[in-house]
Amino acid sequence: MNIVLSGDSQVRVMENTVTSTEKSFGQFCTLLAAYTRKTARLRDKADQLVKQLLDFANAEQPELRATVRDFAEDLAKVQDYRQAEVERLETKVVTPLKLYGAQIKHTRAEIKKFKRVRSNEIKQLEKLEKLRQKSPSDRQMISQAETSVQRASVDASRTTHQLEETIDAFQKQKLKDLQKIFLDFVTIEMVFHAKAVEVYSSAFRTLENYDMERDMESVQSTIRSQGGEEEVNEDNSVEEEQVEELRGQDGDPNSSRK
Amino acid sequence: MNIVLSGDSQVRVMENTVTSTEKSFGQFCTLLAAYTRKTARLRDKADQLVKQLLDFANAEQPELRATVRDFAEDLAKVQDYRQAEVERLETKVVTPLKLYGAQIKHTRAEIKKFKRVRSNEIKQLEKLEKLRQKSPSDRQMISQAETSVQRASVDASRTTHQLEETIDAFQKQKLKDLQKIFLDFVTIEMVFHAKAVEVYSSAFRTLENYDMERDMESVQSTIRSQGGEEEVNEDNSVEEEQVEELRGQDGDPNSSRK
Repeated sequence: MNIVLSGDSQVRVMENTVTSTEKSFGQFCTLLAAYTRKTARLRDKADQLVKQLLDFANAEQPELRATVRDFAEDLAKVQDYRQAEVERLETKVVTPLKLYGAQIKHTRAEIKKFKRVRSNEIKQLEKLEKLRQKSPSDRQMISQAETSVQRASVDASRTTHQLEETIDAFQKQKLKDLQKIFLDFVTIEMVFHAKAVEVYSSAFRTLENYDMERDMESVQSTIRSQGGEEEVNEDNSVEEEQVEELRGQDGDPNSSRK
Repeated sequence: MNIVLSGDSQVRVMENTVTSTEKSFGQFCTLLAAYTRKTARLRDKADQLVKQLLDFANAEQPELRATVRDFAEDLAKVQDYRQAEVERLETKVVTPLKLYGAQIKHTRAEIKKFKRVRSNEIKQLEKLEKLRQKSPSDRQMISQAETSVQRASVDASRTTHQLEETIDAFQKQKLKDLQKIFLDFVTIEMVFHAKAVEVYSSAFRTLENYDMERDMESVQSTIRSQGGEEEVNEDNSVEEEQVEELRGQDGDPNSSRK
């Protein structure tokens, strides 16, 4: 019979819209979830760096120790903000994109319903057409078929209207949600980067104010009073004295012997 | 003989310093290289997102297309800054830490040289001591040995002085380099985050100004003029007319028949 209704291409447009939206949102969801994961990995590495800085600081001179600790604390603060970024991306970007499946399902159901009603209308029209050709004089049958067609047509027109509204709502929701999701993404990123700038500015001042000369003095005194930590060992001290003595003799070999 | 020289513990302090610096710098290098790699991975993901946004935009309504393209461009700009961040981290943070091995090697060589000179001094001292005990009357031999000791002692004292200077320089360089490397790290991060804030602020305005209503109008007209793209197919148009005709008849079944 090959009857093509204008509604069929309307349905095709809608189906394509829903399918391509499903695909796009799916891809956005996958990519943004991966982006969030990579951000979490970066946070993990920076956390390790913080730990390593603190371990390192413990074995260093007082000034460097304080400086590196402060720096590590600032770096840790940035990671806290990054953690907040990761959580917000999950909640406000990835999850809404994931939940979009429900929206899609609802719209697909509406389209299916429309197709069912539509095919019923076509069936009734075909039945009426057949009757008119086979029994043009059977007024009662034709009248009954006409009523069925009328009923199916009213159904179809109501469903068409519903479908149009559903599609309108779907499109509107899609545009609105996309705008919202990307605005949220940008806001989350912006807040994180702004906080990072703030914390790194403080870290910069910390590192810049590091008083190296003071540490160098204490390093030099440590090295020159070498073995100071070994003074508890009396044998060593005695031996060192002996050596110093020997050396004293060497310094003036002629006067040193009796 | 068990002679312990004060220099021995000095050497031990120095060796420990060099070893722990080598270890710390090695760990910092590994971690910061990993941090840089993770940053590059994040950039890769965001690049994919940019590509996906551009693909998506092409199939969308004019307003959304323009908005998403602008947003994608901003996102790409952030990745360009991230790429600069990655390159700078490589050049100014990871590479200097990697090259620190040379510094360490030089200092180790100095320590080795010091130990050699030191053990020669001890050898000469032991020789002299032996002579004094075995042949206390052999003035000439003792005098020769005393001269050797004196020479070795001058050598050792010069080398001790050199080593102290090397260690001072090493410590100073280490503190200076650490400060410089971490300052560079913080500066690179700060510049990147500041640029990101700037670009995302522009992206925020772009997304906020998106005129959804205008797209909705064109979406609605596309859906309602459904199948417009199929008008080239004459057969369809004819069939659609037939259906419209049939439907017209159904609308008023009693008056439609002749």
